[in-house]
Amino acid sequence: MTIDLSIPALHDIARGAAFLGTGGGGDPYIGRLLAQHALAKYGAPPVVALQDLPDDANLYTIAIMGAPTVMVEKLVGGDEVGLAVKALEQHTGRPATAILPVEMGGINSLLPVKLAAERGLPVVDADGMGRAFPELQMVTFNVMGIPATPMALANEHGEYNVISARDAKSAEDMARLMVIHMGGGVALSCYPMSGAEAKRAAIPGTLSLALGIGQAIAAGRRAGDPFEALLGYLRGTDYYRHCAVLFDGKIVDLVRETTRGFSIGRCSIAADGAATADMEILFQNENLVARRGGRTVAIVPDLVTMLDRETAEPITTESLKYGQRVRVIGASVPPIMRSPAALACFGPRSFGIEEDFQPIEDLI
Amino acid sequence: MTIDLSIPALHDIARGAAFLGTGGGGDPYIGRLLAQHALAKYGAPPVVALQDLPDDANLYTIAIMGAPTVMVEKLVGGDEVGLAVKALEQHTGRPATAILPVEMGGINSLLPVKLAAERGLPVVDADGMGRAFPELQMVTFNVMGIPATPMALANEHGEYNVISARDAKSAEDMARLMVIHMGGGVALSCYPMSGAEAKRAAIPGTLSLALGIGQAIAAGRRAGDPFEALLGYLRGTDYYRHCAVLFDGKIVDLVRETTRGFSIGRCSIAADGAATADMEILFQNENLVARRGGRTVAIVPDLVTMLDRETAEPITTESLKYGQRVRVIGASVPPIMRSPAALACFGPRSFGIEEDFQPIEDLI
Repeated sequence: MTIDLSIPALHDIARGAAFLGTGGGGDPYIGRLLAQHALAKYGAPPVVALQDLPDDANLYTIAIMGAPTVMVEKLVGGDEVGLAVKALEQHTGRPATAILPVEMGGINSLLPVKLAAERGLPVVDADGMGRAFPELQMVTFNVMGIPATPMALANEHGEYNVISARDAKSAEDMARLMVIHMGGGVALSCYPMSGAEAKRAAIPGTLSLALGIGQAIAAGRRAGDPFEALLGYLRGTDYYRHCAVLFDGKIVDLVRETTRGFSIGRCSIAADGAATADMEILFQNENLVARRGGRTVAIVPDLVTMLDRETAEPITTESLKYGQRVRVIGASVPPIMRSPAALACFGPRSFGIEEDFQPIEDLI
Repeated sequence: MTIDLSIPALHDIARGAAFLGTGGGGDPYIGRLLAQHALAKYGAPPVVALQDLPDDANLYTIAIMGAPTVMVEKLVGGDEVGLAVKALEQHTGRPATAILPVEMGGINSLLPVKLAAERGLPVVDADGMGRAFPELQMVTFNVMGIPATPMALANEHGEYNVISARDAKSAEDMARLMVIHMGGGVALSCYPMSGAEAKRAAIPGTLSLALGIGQAIAAGRRAGDPFEALLGYLRGTDYYRHCAVLFDGKIVDLVRETTRGFSIGRCSIAADGAATADMEILFQNENLVARRGGRTVAIVPDLVTMLDRETAEPITTESLKYGQRVRVIGASVPPIMRSPAALACFGPRSFGIEEDFQPIEDLI
């Protein structure tokens, strides 16, 4: 089963991916515009299921790497997107046969759609996390042993950088330096892999799931309760079925700084009428942990997303504001994201949070 | 006329290039050992004159980029040297047909010899400055319009980085970040060019001249006055014929810090028996300006080199010490290095020295 990429579908994917992006992965509005422009000009690219890929397919990823706070002002998604993949193809000598998303997020779920449309290539219905993460080693591709490099970074000046690093963390360190030097946001193509490798290391169906989540929220709005529709949809999925509203209230404190190439901070939420905040959420581009009265109620890699209380529109970390009325939703992630190897790579301690992962179904 | 690369010739080239390196370009002892090892294992590579290169030759440069103070402790010249060129060849798709030195300096004049021996390729008797400079845009190749990139950096962990930048200064900025990240010293191959381009942009005969300078010092030691022999030799060359002993004395103050990826500092020298220092030399890896009693007596791009008072062994900035007895020699550089375009690229103001270039022949 594949999905059709139409302009309305792009709206829903952007919204759904922003939910999965847990605050990160970039502004869904920009992601949607980028893909919409490409679809209008080149037509919709075909979507191919992971299991239908030929084993010898040459897959290239494309994403924007940088601090979301920067990308609000420094727009991305121009010629550097194509250039990153072209520089990498030139280096490997293998032309791309399909484009593979790295993560689900407002921009990074739709950038592959844009590039696939431009290049006349299919986009794969899969990614490397079923959510978004801030660092490039934090992906199932790495957990399953696919090398992050050679990888290519490109910027809006036509400059690029092809990096071969000894491991994914070293690749992240080098790329992050370049991101900061290049202005805080660049196009990145990493983890070039074959179809056979993707079948082993990628998470199938996540682009379809982003579409389904976005559609559920839209339908719920029309029916009067987008949260009920969203939770209902999530409960019907394999990956995200353990889910709950973790809190409902008003943002009363927000600390956010753009540092080391990331948006890092903390958001406090008070229940209506309450004198003090009862929920605290920490983030590094993405939301990492939600604590209620000091007790952890959801923690990475499980999802923590803040949504507008009325419309259930997901809110990215760079657009959080004092006084916003929000609902916080937590949800489980695909089992491959919770393996011991996966937790060593992107569990709480890899973000400096000194506690063990606990599945959301045990916490709520 | 070409030269023969024998083990004794390597000693002389290392010494002569260290003189031309004006304090930078790395430790001649390490440069000589690296080349000597390669000659013993693979035999001496042929030396080809610039004008004898085929126009369609594929020339690749090789150098160590970093702070000399770091390279005293972090040895360079292993597998990363070959890797830098290999990564760049893979990227351009054009295999090297000869190796071209970028600069004359203790390591960087002999690293091309080492690599040429290993690869069974000729080394070109030429370079891009006839001296050494700290930043990679500071080279006649750039002044004459040869692009610095694509270029490749490689380190001892087998990691590499192929960079395409919009101009040589941006290439320098990106490479310097990587140098710092990779530990302060890496192998670099930049300015890939054809034989026709090299004939237009390179300075011919500089490897021969380094050899001649080293031989003159050695012969002078045997005859009893290495300085007389050195100055006599320089006066017979087209490039360095305006030359003089600028000062003779003892180092009484030395400020040197390793910062922004460079060795930056200042050295004060007092004449024998004098109570205060009368000569001051500023350096950024290389010596930049010599001032006597506050008056400039030699300034970049002209040469300022400190040598051991007894042996005329050139002293690199990282091995300067309090109490050393030194003679300071200044000398002119090839005319291509003094053009308005050249001075805009590596004249005094490009190092933050707020004065105009004056030829040494007008100052002494």
